[in-house]
Amino acid sequence: MKKMNMVIAQSGGPSMVINESLVGAVLEARKSDRIGKILGARHGILGILGDDYIDLRKVSVKKLEAIAVTPSSALGSCRRKPDAADCKAIFEAFRKRNVGYFFYIGGNDSADAARIVAEEAEKENYPLVVYHIPKTIDNDLRSCDHTPGFGSAARFVASAIRGDDLDNRALEGVKIDIIMGRDAGFLTAASALARAHEDDGPHLIYLPEVPFTEEKFVKDVKAVMKKYGRCVCAVSEGIRGKDGVPMGAKLGSGEKDSHGNVQMSGSGALGDALAAILKAKAGVKRVRADTFGYLQRSFPGIASAVDQAEGRAAGEAAVKAALKGELTKGTIAIVRKEGRKYKVAFAPVPIQNAAKYTRSVPKEYIAKNGHDVTQAFLDYVRPIVGELPPCEIF
Amino acid sequence: MKKMNMVIAQSGGPSMVINESLVGAVLEARKSDRIGKILGARHGILGILGDDYIDLRKVSVKKLEAIAVTPSSALGSCRRKPDAADCKAIFEAFRKRNVGYFFYIGGNDSADAARIVAEEAEKENYPLVVYHIPKTIDNDLRSCDHTPGFGSAARFVASAIRGDDLDNRALEGVKIDIIMGRDAGFLTAASALARAHEDDGPHLIYLPEVPFTEEKFVKDVKAVMKKYGRCVCAVSEGIRGKDGVPMGAKLGSGEKDSHGNVQMSGSGALGDALAAILKAKAGVKRVRADTFGYLQRSFPGIASAVDQAEGRAAGEAAVKAALKGELTKGTIAIVRKEGRKYKVAFAPVPIQNAAKYTRSVPKEYIAKNGHDVTQAFLDYVRPIVGELPPCEIF
Repeated sequence: MKKMNMVIAQSGGPSMVINESLVGAVLEARKSDRIGKILGARHGILGILGDDYIDLRKVSVKKLEAIAVTPSSALGSCRRKPDAADCKAIFEAFRKRNVGYFFYIGGNDSADAARIVAEEAEKENYPLVVYHIPKTIDNDLRSCDHTPGFGSAARFVASAIRGDDLDNRALEGVKIDIIMGRDAGFLTAASALARAHEDDGPHLIYLPEVPFTEEKFVKDVKAVMKKYGRCVCAVSEGIRGKDGVPMGAKLGSGEKDSHGNVQMSGSGALGDALAAILKAKAGVKRVRADTFGYLQRSFPGIASAVDQAEGRAAGEAAVKAALKGELTKGTIAIVRKEGRKYKVAFAPVPIQNAAKYTRSVPKEYIAKNGHDVTQAFLDYVRPIVGELPPCEIF
Repeated sequence: MKKMNMVIAQSGGPSMVINESLVGAVLEARKSDRIGKILGARHGILGILGDDYIDLRKVSVKKLEAIAVTPSSALGSCRRKPDAADCKAIFEAFRKRNVGYFFYIGGNDSADAARIVAEEAEKENYPLVVYHIPKTIDNDLRSCDHTPGFGSAARFVASAIRGDDLDNRALEGVKIDIIMGRDAGFLTAASALARAHEDDGPHLIYLPEVPFTEEKFVKDVKAVMKKYGRCVCAVSEGIRGKDGVPMGAKLGSGEKDSHGNVQMSGSGALGDALAAILKAKAGVKRVRADTFGYLQRSFPGIASAVDQAEGRAAGEAAVKAALKGELTKGTIAIVRKEGRKYKVAFAPVPIQNAAKYTRSVPKEYIAKNGHDVTQAFLDYVRPIVGELPPCEIF
């Protein structure tokens, strides 16, 4: 088979393990004599359009391994949705550089971008193997039991809530913590792992999957305050009213990216608004709100070991599948195996499975009261996140 | 010498190592046959007023050691400034319980509370040895080279900024991070430890010690954007205008505690306001703001080892000094020794040295441009914080 060059790039929001996938793919590709140059495009497809590459064959294994454990997207990222003109320019660039393999690491929007490139390549008769490598802290890809990046972000969230609940035990009041997750509440739900004792927070968990009302919120908080004299609320930035409109979008900046998503993170507006509601209507004196923000995806040194290993394996699996050649426009599905012991497989599936549409927290993971998770969710999420730092109370 | 019981309590904002000081004091006290009961008052002096104690002689060493590495104040905290009536009630409670030793772990307000108790005890002829044990993430006690709690919070801040700068490399723009520190900018200044490469953030550091103007801020950000195309700003929650009024208080909730301090944390208002300024006046499209909030003092599992050891030693030193009896109303000063190798001593000094008034970041630690720190500050802070998680870039 003809030797072809490969391009790999990262897209969308960074994570703590997206570089594991990059390094996994690069080291796997280095093993094959069917892959020539390994080009890392800077800032996703923008690097392809601008002919801005790093030669990843020349980077030492030692440096690659150091990059693997570094948070954020080492190649740089973008949020560009390629149009027909972009695709034309991409194939021109690929032709010039003799590129036959294209790997794109990212979430559902990035999978959609890769799908567009793959479909346009077919139309243009440009021979290209395209693989999307899954990454998203939101855990909302339909193709995966869970996604690389989620476990580490969930570990940050659960650790933060555990510490914050201890803080709120010391100086009692209501603490509201706003957690990332535009459409899916997986990350907010993972805050439940913070609980080690019966009266530990989070006491209330609000997901985008359950319509949010001010009335229920005030009532819930009052009930917890009556029981414990303190209350920690884990609130998804994506909570929405009965009308389906996100509360954060109602109160936030309204800024949109090229995929049409409203900006929610990087603003304290939602937390402050919810705190104001409680001060006015729940009769609580001490109410504080924190928005965990970008730290959830970029804090160094605390990644989940399982998440790191799976990020690495997803990158390796994509290159293996691309070289196998059975499926030429694919993504890597992460499939959890049945059985007591936690085990996953990495399977190539059509790229459409990951693209565009997202998945929500399933009903069986949401408690009937609408402000908690079920044991089934805890069983699902615990092995991905790992043991949290121990905390003891009197 | 007569055997007397002791009361120990925690006050003010929690930290990651305040329980080290508690456990250090308790285990030291357990060695002495001059101390009878070791009573931990819940929620500071409120526990004394409410006769709400934990018998700390009966808690196993294993449990105490687990509590030592748990963030936040395990006994609970308060922000109560004792008045004459409180003191009368305290001495009555102490008399009933045969208390001769009182230890209060906290910052300058807590030291002031302990000073008030000590002075009132003298007036009332109640024989009481009072020791304040230093704790504050703000690092603003006049009696200490640095305070237990600061190193770990600084470690959180520097780690967070390091990850955030990597995030802002991937998706370029301006990132504003609001960092705790009501009056002193030490914690914000410590963000400079995040830098490992020449172009690493934080690119701009704003401390309460340097008057903040919108004009300089906009000009500074524009200059960094021109140079790097991205900019990370570490901003103290306590920055104030030329008129001395904190920007956070101007924009925040205005809520005050009993020591007269305006609430600054637990709100995203300052960051959002600064982001709005940049969007309007610096011509930057992507501006995000995060307020690190309470995670800075309560995040589990990432404490500085030096800070933990010093927190422990400060607690031990207070009990030793109290038993020695030379100084009966004291606090523990942390004194850095001259010489190349980092070394500190723990010395009893009069309680007034820590009480009420705070210290600011000294001029020699602030860069002349008004938005950075000096090498002298980095040399000062590095050993307290320790090595950060490694990060590699292409």
